[in-house]
Amino acid sequence: MANFLVDELKTLGFTDIQLKELGTQPPPVQDANLQLPPIVLGRFGNDPAKKTVLVYGHYDVQPALKDDGWKTEPFTMHYDKEKEILYGRGSTDDKGPVVGWLNVIEAHNKLGWELPVNLVVCFEGMEESGSLGLDDLVAKEAQNYFKKVDQVTISDNYWLGTTKPVLTYGLRGCNYYQIIIEGPGADLHSGIFGGIIAEPMTDLIKVMSTLVDGSGKILIPGVYDMVAPLTDKEDQLYDSIDFSVEELNAASGSQTSLHDNKKDILKHRWRFPSLSLHGIEGAFSGAGAKTVIPAKVVGKFSIRTVPDIESKKLDDLVFQHITSEFKKLNSPNKFKVELIHDGNYWVSDPFNDSFTAAAKATQDVWNVVPDFTREGGSIPITLTFEKELGVDVLLLPMGRGDDGAHSINEKLDVSNYINGCKTLGGYLHYYGKA
Amino acid sequence: MANFLVDELKTLGFTDIQLKELGTQPPPVQDANLQLPPIVLGRFGNDPAKKTVLVYGHYDVQPALKDDGWKTEPFTMHYDKEKEILYGRGSTDDKGPVVGWLNVIEAHNKLGWELPVNLVVCFEGMEESGSLGLDDLVAKEAQNYFKKVDQVTISDNYWLGTTKPVLTYGLRGCNYYQIIIEGPGADLHSGIFGGIIAEPMTDLIKVMSTLVDGSGKILIPGVYDMVAPLTDKEDQLYDSIDFSVEELNAASGSQTSLHDNKKDILKHRWRFPSLSLHGIEGAFSGAGAKTVIPAKVVGKFSIRTVPDIESKKLDDLVFQHITSEFKKLNSPNKFKVELIHDGNYWVSDPFNDSFTAAAKATQDVWNVVPDFTREGGSIPITLTFEKELGVDVLLLPMGRGDDGAHSINEKLDVSNYINGCKTLGGYLHYYGKA
Repeated sequence: MANFLVDELKTLGFTDIQLKELGTQPPPVQDANLQLPPIVLGRFGNDPAKKTVLVYGHYDVQPALKDDGWKTEPFTMHYDKEKEILYGRGSTDDKGPVVGWLNVIEAHNKLGWELPVNLVVCFEGMEESGSLGLDDLVAKEAQNYFKKVDQVTISDNYWLGTTKPVLTYGLRGCNYYQIIIEGPGADLHSGIFGGIIAEPMTDLIKVMSTLVDGSGKILIPGVYDMVAPLTDKEDQLYDSIDFSVEELNAASGSQTSLHDNKKDILKHRWRFPSLSLHGIEGAFSGAGAKTVIPAKVVGKFSIRTVPDIESKKLDDLVFQHITSEFKKLNSPNKFKVELIHDGNYWVSDPFNDSFTAAAKATQDVWNVVPDFTREGGSIPITLTFEKELGVDVLLLPMGRGDDGAHSINEKLDVSNYINGCKTLGGYLHYYGKA
Repeated sequence: MANFLVDELKTLGFTDIQLKELGTQPPPVQDANLQLPPIVLGRFGNDPAKKTVLVYGHYDVQPALKDDGWKTEPFTMHYDKEKEILYGRGSTDDKGPVVGWLNVIEAHNKLGWELPVNLVVCFEGMEESGSLGLDDLVAKEAQNYFKKVDQVTISDNYWLGTTKPVLTYGLRGCNYYQIIIEGPGADLHSGIFGGIIAEPMTDLIKVMSTLVDGSGKILIPGVYDMVAPLTDKEDQLYDSIDFSVEELNAASGSQTSLHDNKKDILKHRWRFPSLSLHGIEGAFSGAGAKTVIPAKVVGKFSIRTVPDIESKKLDDLVFQHITSEFKKLNSPNKFKVELIHDGNYWVSDPFNDSFTAAAKATQDVWNVVPDFTREGGSIPITLTFEKELGVDVLLLPMGRGDDGAHSINEKLDVSNYINGCKTLGGYLHYYGKA
C-alpha cells in the first residue's frame, strides 16, 4: 500500500516523496525483526505566498475475513451499481478518503487549475494499531518536513447520521487494556480437573463482570470524577443537532439503544466515557463444544476517554480496581493487568479559519449548513499534530454514520465519495483565501 | 480412520466386519449433507462355549493445532526414544488403547494361541462430540450384532496418578450448555457505539459470572440438593487410594489446587459436580487489540454430573437460573440458553467378575493391587452399553494421569503401552475362565 501511494504521488507530480521507516514492531510479536509499515510523505507546491495544508490519512485497515459475514470479498472492492455504493474493507476507513485527496489533485491537474495552497501529505500504516511510530515522526519532522505547515486536515471520521454533512471538533480518546490470568501449565480436560483446580476463566469472568454494568455505566471507582461537568450552555449545543434514536437504531441494525432521546445519545457518544468488553484470547472460541479448561486467558477491554480524564490517572484507577477485584477472589492463579495502547481525547475551536472554510465548502456542495459535532471514536494523531506543530486541526469527514467502519460489509456511498472530493477541494480554495 | 481399522481387522482375521453409517450430522452444521463418521464393527471367534467380550473404543480425537503450543506436529506420532514416550493427538485418548487391543489379537495370532473369549469390537468416530448416533446403534444392535455379548470393556480413561494402575467403576456425566446473546445487526466500532447501545458481551460476562465461584462452587440454586449424600463408609473408601496434592500439581503443571488434601481432591473429582467456563464464540479472540463491539456472543460452559443428579432437572435449573439472571439485566438484547449435548454419570460394582479378572491381570503384569477408582471425565456410552445390553461394563485404563488427554503434547508412555497390552490380554484369559 505504501508503494502504491508513492507511485500515485509520483504520477500526480508530488515532489520530495519520502518513505519514512519506523524500525521494528515492538513486543509482543512472533517475528522480532518485523518492520513497521513506513510513513509516506510528499509535497505538492512550495509557494511561500500560499498557506500550507498537511493532509493526514492512513492506508492500513481493520482485520476482515469473508467468514465474518461479508457478502463480498472484503479485500476486493465491490461496486454495487444499483445502490451506487462501494463495498470493501477500508472503503470509508480510510482508503476511500485518502484516494479522494489524490483525486482532488488529479482534477486540478486535468483542469489546468492551480492549487490555492501548498499541500503536504502524511499517510501512515499503523492507525488501526495505535499509530505506532507516528508520534515520534511528527515530533522529529515538526521543524523539518512539516516546518511550514499552517494547518492539518484529516478525513478519517464519519457523518453523525446518513443525510447531513458534519464538521468535527472533538474526539474521544481510547485506552485499551488486557487482563492476563494464568493457571495450569497447559489446557486441561474439564472432566479430570474440573472442581479441583482454580480455573483462570472463572477468575477472568468474575473480574471482567466488575467493569461495566448493563446500562453502560463504568464501575471502576473514580473514573466519572475526572469527567468535566456538563454546563447548561454545553447542554443546549445538542438541541440543534440533526439526529434521532431511529438513526442510531438504523446504524446499529437493532433496537438496543441505551437512551431514549437524541441528546443523551449524543452526550454518551461524545462527552462521556464508555467501556467495552471486546473478547478473550486463549479460551475456546470456536463453534460447537470443547471440554477444555483454558490454561491462560487474556481479557480485552477499552475505555473511551473525554475531557478532563488524565490518561495515566485512568490507568492507575483501572489497575487498582482490577487488582483489588482479583485479590478478592483469593485465587492461586497468576494475574497481570496492562495497557496495550492509549490515545488522548481532543477538542478544538469550531469557529477558526479552517472550520469556517470547510463549512462554506460543505454548504456549496451539499446546500446545507453542516452540523458541528464531536465523535465517539479516537484519532489520537489529531492531538499529536496539534501539539507538535502548534497549528489547528480540522476533521472533515467523507463517509456516513452507517458505513460500518470496523464492521462487516464496510461501504462508502458514491455520492459521498464524489461530493466528498468536491468538498475537500472547495475547502482548500476557501482556506487558501482566508 | 474407519477404513484403516477395517483393513487392520481384515488382516487380523476378524469376520462379519461392518461399517455402520449413521446418517447426516444434525444442525448446526454448514453442510447439511455432512455424513457422520461410520461405526466399525467386527468379530473375532464365534465359539458358543466361550464368553463374548465387546471391546469399545473411539478413533476420533480432540482438535489440535501446532500453534496451540505443541512441541511436535500433533497429527504425526513422535517417538521420544530417550524418554520412552509416544507423543501425538490420540496417543492416549483413544487411538493408543484401540491399537493396543489389535496388538493383543496380533500377539495371539503370532504365538498360535487361541483367544479365551469371543471378541466383538465397536469403534466409533464421534466420541469427542457426544457420541452422536451411537446410542441408537447400540439399541438397534442389542438383539442383533451384540446379541451374545456377556461383558463390555472400555479402555478410554487414565490412571489417577503416574505410577499405580487403577480399575475404574464410576464416571461423572457431562451436560454442555451455551448462552447466546445477540444485539446489533453486525459487529460495531466501540468508539462510535460504546456507551449508547447495550453490548451483548457486557450481558454475557455478567450472566457467566453468576455460574461458579473461585472456589469451584456451583452457584446455580438446587444443583447440590440433587447430589447423593456422602456416607461415612464412602468417605473411608478414599483413605487407601494412592494420590496426593503433589501428584495433582504435577499433572496440572501448577500450584492451583482448590483443596489441600487427597480426599477432598478425589471427592471433588469423582463424586461432586463441577462447572467449567470454556470460552466465548463470536467475541474478539486474537492477540493484540481490536476495538470491536461483538454483535452476537455465545458463552460455553459445562457441568460434570454425579449421582443422583437428574439430567433433565439439571437442564431446568440451569435454564431457570440463567434466564432469571439475564432478566435482572433489563437488557434489550436477544437471549437464548440451550443444551449442546449431555451424557449421564455411571457407577458400577467393583467386585464383579470382570473387575476381579482385570485386577488379577493387573497384579500379574504390574506386581501391585490396582486402586479402585472413579473418574471425573465422561464416557456416556458406558451407561448406554450397560442399559441396552444388560451386562456389566469394565473400564480398564492404559494411560497415566499426566498424559494430557484434550491438552497439548498428549502422550502415552511406552511402558504403559506394552504393559497395557499385556493387561488387556491377561484380563481376557482370567475373564474367560471366571
